[in-house]
Parts: sequence; C-alpha cells; structure tokens
Amino acid sequence: MNFCSQCGEKVRFAVPEGDDRSRYLCDACGTIHYQNPRIVAGTLPISGSKVLLCKRAIAPRKGYWTLPAGYMENAETTQQAAMRETWEEAFAEVDLGELYTLIDLPHINQVYMIFLADLLGGFSAGPESLEVALFEEHEIPWDALAFPTIERTLQHYYADRKSVADRKSVADRKSVADRKNAADHTAGVARQRADYPLHSSTIMPEDRERYFGSA
Amino acid sequence: MNFCSQCGEKVRFAVPEGDDRSRYLCDACGTIHYQNPRIVAGTLPISGSKVLLCKRAIAPRKGYWTLPAGYMENAETTQQAAMRETWEEAFAEVDLGELYTLIDLPHINQVYMIFLADLLGGFSAGPESLEVALFEEHEIPWDALAFPTIERTLQHYYADRKSVADRKSVADRKSVADRKNAADHTAGVARQRADYPLHSSTIMPEDRERYFGSA
Repeated sequence: MNFCSQCGEKVRFAVPEGDDRSRYLCDACGTIHYQNPRIVAGTLPISGSKVLLCKRAIAPRKGYWTLPAGYMENAETTQQAAMRETWEEAFAEVDLGELYTLIDLPHINQVYMIFLADLLGGFSAGPESLEVALFEEHEIPWDALAFPTIERTLQHYYADRKSVADRKSVADRKSVADRKNAADHTAGVARQRADYPLHSSTIMPEDRERYFGSA
Repeated sequence: MNFCSQCGEKVRFAVPEGDDRSRYLCDACGTIHYQNPRIVAGTLPISGSKVLLCKRAIAPRKGYWTLPAGYMENAETTQQAAMRETWEEAFAEVDLGELYTLIDLPHINQVYMIFLADLLGGFSAGPESLEVALFEEHEIPWDALAFPTIERTLQHYYADRKSVADRKSVADRKSVADRKNAADHTAGVARQRADYPLHSSTIMPEDRERYFGSA
C-alpha cells in the first residue's frame, strides 16, 4: 500500500496514537487503513467411500490436487462461500454439513474453513480446475496435494472414518441395537458432529515450505 | 474506495474480465482491489456459575454489555485474537476452549467466532470498557446487550448448561459410575465439545435492527 484509497495522498506505515501495531496512515485525510486476515472457505465432498478432489488449473500450485475452496466474498456466509467455491471449481452440488477443519495460517493471514459435505449428483471441471475426480483412500495423491491445509483435512477425515469403522466392528459383535446404531454411521456423514468433530489447528511456515519450497 | 492504493490513480467499480462481481479496478496499473469479510474473535469467559461481560466504553453501542471480542489482526491465529481481545477489554487471562459460536453477518461482512473459555484469576476494565463484571444467569442484562451475536451466544450457553444439568439430575438417580461422569461436567467447561458443541448460524439485518434501530 502506497497511497490512500480515500483521498489519493501518500500513506506512511506507523503506529497510530492509542494503537499497539503499525498501520498504513494517511496524514492528509486521517484514514487508518486496517488490514485483516482473509477466510478461505471450502468443502470436503464425500460420495460413499470416495472424496472429490480438483486438479488446479491456475497458480499457485497449478497441476496439484486440492479440495474445492477459495476466498470468502463480502455479502455471503461461510456456508454460502464453501458451496459457491465447490460449484465454481467442480460444478458439484453438495449437502453441506458442519465445519470440519478450522486452520489458521498466521504468516500469510489466512483462515481455512473446510466443511464436510455429501456430494449430490455429478461434477465436472470448472474454469479453475484441469480435472475433477473421485478418490478412494488408497488413491489419494498425497505427494501431489496443493496445500498443507488439504493434506491435514484429509488426514483428519481418514482417521475419524477409521475410528467410526472400528466402533462399528465392535458393535457388530454386540447387540442388534448397537448394530443399528453403527449402521447409521455408514450413511451421509456431513451432519455427524460426534463422529467427525471440528479440528482446529495452525499451519506454520515450515509446514508450507514442504509444499512451496519457501513459505 | 476512490483511489488505487498501489499507484494513486482513480479507481472504477466494475466487473473484471472473467469475474462475476464488481470490484474496485485501477486502469492505470491493473490492480484489482478485492474486499473480503472480517473475523471478529472473542471469548465467553466462564467462572463457576458466572460469565464475564464488559460494558462498552466506545461506539458503537457505548454503555451496552458485550463479551470481549474484536477484529482479528494479521499475523495472529483466531485463538490468539480471542485471547488478546479478552486481555485488552477485560485484563482477563483465560484457559481457551473450543470454538463455540460461528455467526455470519453477511450484510456487514463480518464473521463472529466466540470461543468458550475458563476465566483464570482476576479482571478489570480495559481502555475500551467502562466496567467489567461477572453475572449469574438471572442477572444477565438481556435488554442492555450490545449485539445480537452476544445475545445468541449466551442463549446457546444457558441452553447447553441446562441440558448438562438435566442429564446430571438423571444420572444422580442412577449408578455411581454415571454420577462420577456427570460430576465431571461441573468442572471447567471450555474443552467439553460433547456438552457445548459448535453452534453455527447467520444474523440477518432484522436481527440487528432490534439493536441498532436500523441494520
């Protein structure tokens, strides 16, 4: 930022009176230009035992695989942003579930919010995707994922899914009521907070270096 | 926005090529000025049966009661933002728990994120507060709360707490093991996802009109 977006005069970077951190300040009109983190909203679209990934057609990380996600826009909700990005990148409609990963990236001023979602119907590559496809767990291209946020979200998902399957296996050896309960877990997952709880975490520069060479 | 913050020339508001919504565009240097929602992070500080509220010393809603919360800054995490705001507004340290309410306010481009927190030690009014105090449920100044986000967060908290108490009451009439389990619920609440789950919702202009006269 070099100029004041209100009056067009040059700005300076300094701590405003009564504040405790530097901002871009306009001495001509008095505007303080606050800058704040941005939300990246997206989904983990699930279809039976498979998940949907998009191969990026644009920088950064062109050619690498990602979950559909992007910057939340003004005048929309986080849920609307997640569904819009899923449509734009994969032409996929989803039954949106609960927030699943909340990941802070403080060194690049981003907050990732990925929602569980049940895929409804078909899909195809949107303008920002080269290809969109469904993957079984053993098919996930772990070495060709676009971002550490995506890797982490998928890791949580498969760990939680294994935990659900293990409980189901135990229940299968128990009562009919337990079996019924366990069977419910194999239906749409998007709204099952108990089995797929919110995972909050932070990604640091070293996590991103594995992907970008430098963070 | 009237001028380009990069080069100082006048901007225009129009849909960029390949985009689907209007942005501030600089024809001189080609910069597209994206604008995105801001996160308001804060806490619901709990001390035994009481919660901490702050009486606002600044506009908007000066003199009304709020939970400690404010805009998340660049280079911090949502948790750090929530703890910083709790310190700045109430000089209160907290043991931060899980995200408790996620509230979208699309018409003012804000996303509220309030975390459950156990209050540690003392507190006093920070520069943006006239007064800070602990309230029992029956003492909450419902008609003098600053924002609908605060009202909603407190409503969720008391509903969840009643639900925990009701289960405890049932358990008291059952086995010793159940009693032990129920007794655990009376300890610090901040990390108990099962009893105090994430509540996601949206606040619309009409909800804010009750507070602001107009949204």
